[in-house]
Amino acid sequence: MTALTAPIRNGVNTDTLFATLDLLEAQPELGRFQFRASNRWIDGAHNRSTIQGLYAAGGEDTSRAEAFELDAGEPAILLGTDTGPNPAEFLLHALAACLTTSIVYVAAARKVRLTSVESTLTGDMDVRGALGVDEEPRNGFEQIRIAFKVTGDAPAEKLREVVERAKARSAVYDMVTNGVPVAVEVAAG
Amino acid sequence: MTALTAPIRNGVNTDTLFATLDLLEAQPELGRFQFRASNRWIDGAHNRSTIQGLYAAGGEDTSRAEAFELDAGEPAILLGTDTGPNPAEFLLHALAACLTTSIVYVAAARKVRLTSVESTLTGDMDVRGALGVDEEPRNGFEQIRIAFKVTGDAPAEKLREVVERAKARSAVYDMVTNGVPVAVEVAAG
Repeated sequence: MTALTAPIRNGVNTDTLFATLDLLEAQPELGRFQFRASNRWIDGAHNRSTIQGLYAAGGEDTSRAEAFELDAGEPAILLGTDTGPNPAEFLLHALAACLTTSIVYVAAARKVRLTSVESTLTGDMDVRGALGVDEEPRNGFEQIRIAFKVTGDAPAEKLREVVERAKARSAVYDMVTNGVPVAVEVAAG
Repeated sequence: MTALTAPIRNGVNTDTLFATLDLLEAQPELGRFQFRASNRWIDGAHNRSTIQGLYAAGGEDTSRAEAFELDAGEPAILLGTDTGPNPAEFLLHALAACLTTSIVYVAAARKVRLTSVESTLTGDMDVRGALGVDEEPRNGFEQIRIAFKVTGDAPAEKLREVVERAKARSAVYDMVTNGVPVAVEVAAG
């Protein structure tokens, strides 16, 4: 029966997914990855990141023929010219994207066929903190709210379990909720 | 003398910058902003965020005529088809962009003309956590390293002070290092 099951579910090749998990269980050292970005200031609030190489599964991953480029900016009210989403909005996108992919992968592994995953995110910020007007408000969001709408061929209860498992496994959800040590080096002059 | 000083420094209109800070000091309630993103799953690791509206300075900001769209993906080794940077890479970009803009704004306020701001970021992750292979590694980055290279018309010591002040004020640096409460709601079925 297994051989007759189509291995693609939710756009994920589940044969490859389970083979990857088996391999990482057998050779834990292959789990060490490194992701990278390089960024360059252009003018005012406009800067651009270039993303291409990564270290993955014991070697340099050169599978990306071209780099991704991401432009950041600020709206006029925050002194920019809208050259791209602002950095806090990019963080919301990172969070939405990671939870969504986690939902899709968990569902694929649990034999749930999804038909839609949509989310809206809001982050509340008192910008007096980041602008240095007042010491009291924190610089970042006070809180982030995410509303997911998920449909698929499983009961609502099972879909909710998939979202819960995705929350428990998402890399960016972990980082945004728990924080990460960041080391900053500066070469100046 | 002040009237003869060109108000644009580092691409930032410093007259507007200082007027904004004065206004927020006089009317603290105008500091309440809300940033937003909505995301939709497309297929596999491919999903897309749409970013346009925000709440700013006491009202809805409708200054963006068009929405920004951001596509996320995963490389083949993480079961995707490279439809965009992956979510963890977007988080690195958010961090780089926010620190860079903070450096540029702080420098503008302190009368430092920058000639370049470049950064490279790396994040180390044991993907066994996020893939659910092992309970021990955390899901997200164990650590993030950022190397900045900053040049401008000020002594190295002053440029370093600008970077330090930017770290102390960056919204995304705050969120990534300290974490943010995230509330997730799910409508399933």
